[in-house]
Amino acid sequence: MSQKVQIPKKKDLLTPLVSPGNVRIVEVGLRDGLQNESHSPDVKVRRELLHQLVKAGAQSLEVGAFVSPKWVPAMACSEELVEAVLVDQKNKIISENVQLSVLVPNEKGMETALRLGVQEIAVFAACSESFSQKNINCSIEESFQRFDVVAKLATAHQIKIRGYLSTCFGCPFEGAVDRSLVIENVQRMLDLGVYEVSLGDTIGVASAGDVERLLHPLLALVPPARLAGHFHDTRGQALVNILKAYNMGITSFDASIGGLGGCPYAPGATGNVATEDVVYLFNSMGVNTGLNLERLVQTNQWLSQHMGRKLSSRVSLANLSKSTIKMKGEMS
Amino acid sequence: MSQKVQIPKKKDLLTPLVSPGNVRIVEVGLRDGLQNESHSPDVKVRRELLHQLVKAGAQSLEVGAFVSPKWVPAMACSEELVEAVLVDQKNKIISENVQLSVLVPNEKGMETALRLGVQEIAVFAACSESFSQKNINCSIEESFQRFDVVAKLATAHQIKIRGYLSTCFGCPFEGAVDRSLVIENVQRMLDLGVYEVSLGDTIGVASAGDVERLLHPLLALVPPARLAGHFHDTRGQALVNILKAYNMGITSFDASIGGLGGCPYAPGATGNVATEDVVYLFNSMGVNTGLNLERLVQTNQWLSQHMGRKLSSRVSLANLSKSTIKMKGEMS
Repeated sequence: MSQKVQIPKKKDLLTPLVSPGNVRIVEVGLRDGLQNESHSPDVKVRRELLHQLVKAGAQSLEVGAFVSPKWVPAMACSEELVEAVLVDQKNKIISENVQLSVLVPNEKGMETALRLGVQEIAVFAACSESFSQKNINCSIEESFQRFDVVAKLATAHQIKIRGYLSTCFGCPFEGAVDRSLVIENVQRMLDLGVYEVSLGDTIGVASAGDVERLLHPLLALVPPARLAGHFHDTRGQALVNILKAYNMGITSFDASIGGLGGCPYAPGATGNVATEDVVYLFNSMGVNTGLNLERLVQTNQWLSQHMGRKLSSRVSLANLSKSTIKMKGEMS
Repeated sequence: MSQKVQIPKKKDLLTPLVSPGNVRIVEVGLRDGLQNESHSPDVKVRRELLHQLVKAGAQSLEVGAFVSPKWVPAMACSEELVEAVLVDQKNKIISENVQLSVLVPNEKGMETALRLGVQEIAVFAACSESFSQKNINCSIEESFQRFDVVAKLATAHQIKIRGYLSTCFGCPFEGAVDRSLVIENVQRMLDLGVYEVSLGDTIGVASAGDVERLLHPLLALVPPARLAGHFHDTRGQALVNILKAYNMGITSFDASIGGLGGCPYAPGATGNVATEDVVYLFNSMGVNTGLNLERLVQTNQWLSQHMGRKLSSRVSLANLSKSTIKMKGEMS
């Protein structure tokens, strides 16, 4: 690990990140979003996207994944991108307060993270065996054994760890997922030293009632500051899930600019909830996200040109469409 | 009014329609939905659509509008359609418990409603002068004077009246709308004998905070059973608005099958929230809507073929798309 990278004090590793009255949006467009796109833009465009998102107020961003490009071609050059933006941060082009994280699936990825001086990593596990096998080619138990190695290395080097739990609300192969297994996996991740577990609705099947049924028993055991919501918008329910989770005390949510991750040729296959749509919701509630909606819409517009298609954020589409009836003051 | 049409007892005219633990979905696809479509299907298809919706469990449906086809070409033949479905109801092809209503803008339309034996009508007014002028070519005051005549005729003939208030959350010409004017117009409609006022977010600009800010003072004056929510999904916020309104006590919501009302050539210009998406939300919460989601998705599929395009319900799109990762048990 480079000595030039600021090392956080040990106590910081598990400090909750959201001030009272605020919501933290973790921008996952560059990783979870782009990884599902058939044509991911090159490093130069991804770096510029990160800069634009930071200018729009993003404080937490996932930059890429140290996975094999054979498995996830869209994440190719993550190393080059991460190195570049860490230099940008060292040179104060990106504020040192901005949290940049990288998905790290195994020890090899962790070694890359250490070499580059990454200050936050993310690990992931599934809540159904079939999904774990098909997605990362190992059992849930084996995935936790891998994370154990990764987490020990990270903690020893004072690197923060965020955890993703996928298929928390349903598995495409097994159907309903046992909530007690989800709760057990959350606990297990926290035991590894993860500061926050992001509960993923990987196939976008949950709605408000499902969120309540999972969070009710979970919050009896785990403080809300240790949990985040990660909702895909496949059935248009992501925002109600966020509202429900927020009303139950969750204040950290993943989102991706423009709802990146959808496939333009498959209308039903959508990505994460769009950052713009989440910010629109919280703006109306007077809850501070730190993000500037107008700049996000402009970033969407810029990125759409690079992607060669319209991105799926409803707020951006409404703002950029000439045919939408707009409120006075909206962009036209 | 035909003597063969069942005349409700006077006290029924203002009785709330939703049993405890239930939510009432008013299906407005045939009117508010289709009226905004550039190519509205013919009477035969609209009649079949109504039958399918009733089979899917719809209990309250708006059938059409007695307006001039010069102004609203898509509502042409409303008279023919209403006559046909009232005969279907007389012949028990449609249950007598199903509420069929027609939008009636003036005395002339009311005379048609009386002649056909319509049992419920809807009237509408705006909350901003500019919108009232551009939409119905008269001031808010003049529109209420027209309704006064219509309402007196309806009440004298024991016909239920539902009221639509448009631009409750914002006007495309004036911007923000004064909440005290919205509250005043709600009260004015109730004074005309309207059993329920549907609060319309005509341009789909509201989100959860806006709903709370309007409902908070309104519910101090008006019981929730006298109010309904009518949310357009332009910025993807319709479901959070419904969830917020439901949590504040509102149990009646307008929705249109497939989210009808959008323009296929203008991605930002969407219609009402889709019935399927609303039912998906309430199903997850264990709240009974009386509607069968699978049948609604099938109706969407059938109607899409007639409309020659995919309709915008997110739940139906996910269900009908081959590429969506589905839960076990979902249609594929």
